[in-house]
Amino acid sequence: MILCDIGNSRAHLFMDGVVEDLTIEDCLSRYAHEKVYYICVNERAARKIVKKAPRWIDLSHRHLLETSYKGLGIDREAACLGVEDGIVIDAGSAITVDVMEKGVHKGGWIWPGLRALRDAYARISTKLDCEIRSDLKLDGLPLETCDAVSFGILAPIVSLVRAFGQGKRIVLTGGDAEKIAAILPEAQIDREVVFRGMMKMIKDNETC
Amino acid sequence: MILCDIGNSRAHLFMDGVVEDLTIEDCLSRYAHEKVYYICVNERAARKIVKKAPRWIDLSHRHLLETSYKGLGIDREAACLGVEDGIVIDAGSAITVDVMEKGVHKGGWIWPGLRALRDAYARISTKLDCEIRSDLKLDGLPLETCDAVSFGILAPIVSLVRAFGQGKRIVLTGGDAEKIAAILPEAQIDREVVFRGMMKMIKDNETC
Repeated sequence: MILCDIGNSRAHLFMDGVVEDLTIEDCLSRYAHEKVYYICVNERAARKIVKKAPRWIDLSHRHLLETSYKGLGIDREAACLGVEDGIVIDAGSAITVDVMEKGVHKGGWIWPGLRALRDAYARISTKLDCEIRSDLKLDGLPLETCDAVSFGILAPIVSLVRAFGQGKRIVLTGGDAEKIAAILPEAQIDREVVFRGMMKMIKDNETC
Repeated sequence: MILCDIGNSRAHLFMDGVVEDLTIEDCLSRYAHEKVYYICVNERAARKIVKKAPRWIDLSHRHLLETSYKGLGIDREAACLGVEDGIVIDAGSAITVDVMEKGVHKGGWIWPGLRALRDAYARISTKLDCEIRSDLKLDGLPLETCDAVSFGILAPIVSLVRAFGQGKRIVLTGGDAEKIAAILPEAQIDREVVFRGMMKMIKDNETC
């Protein structure tokens, strides 16, 4: 079984227990003729799939998650289905944070991704065009510009995830999972969490 | 006495007890021939002033503030000089947060301004192009996309300013001061804080 999660900028493929990160173009050109179960939050990519990949099966409308949230992206929904209790952080083009309690989604919030945040600073002034320092100590006040920028990006993540997590398990996925793990050492990286959710969607449909 | 604080996108003028917010072009064309004390963090504007406004007096090198911070912008320095004890938030193109204790600057951090943050979300996906809701309740989890975006922008401000403020006075300035005051009702808007600092710089120079 091949599973594919298509985001705003990349495609993540799951096959034989291995997760592969690809450009959307690459993914489509390599797997267009296979049977692939997919979710997709990228409308342009969705149109291409319908045109070029006739055997692909869209799971985007198989809503299983119990939640009061309106308009939850199918990728967030799949990731949440993969976790019974805990905080799910998907750090990609955007960083989404969702809280799960006994299999029920309690809500969540969105930040721009690390790249988008860096770019936002750089657009304001070249002086704010800084590498993000994941090793920055966040319990003291920054004493120079690039530390002040890294603090502005990273301290909210640590502070709010811990405040709303209240000791819950923290599950990390997405392209920047390692960078977030560096500031949240109690978090566990889980590259398969979205695909576990997708498998639940497939299974649920089969039993209906 | 005319004082002028030139930022990355706007000029703020102080004359006869009144603060005026102008475009940099407007400010220069109207006051080029007056005697104006100024600070400027915008290199392009700085070059224009030197060319077009021969009577303007640059305060940018009159560093008075006691701090270990390297490369503190002169506008942040002026604002901090205007507060003996407290948190100083300047919410403009960027949002700077600085901590003052007994007249000494203890450090601070930087966020992109509210406009820059909105734009950062909008660039990721049109679905994230949302008005910021300053009336959003920040103690519960968001349950729809635009609330999730507003939460992502506003919750870090409340959470980190309170964590590092530890009950200190919070002083707000900059174009978005009102929007920040809506989520931090204990903060006081003070449009003159930067100019009070500039007056200290002028006075100190006169007594040397």
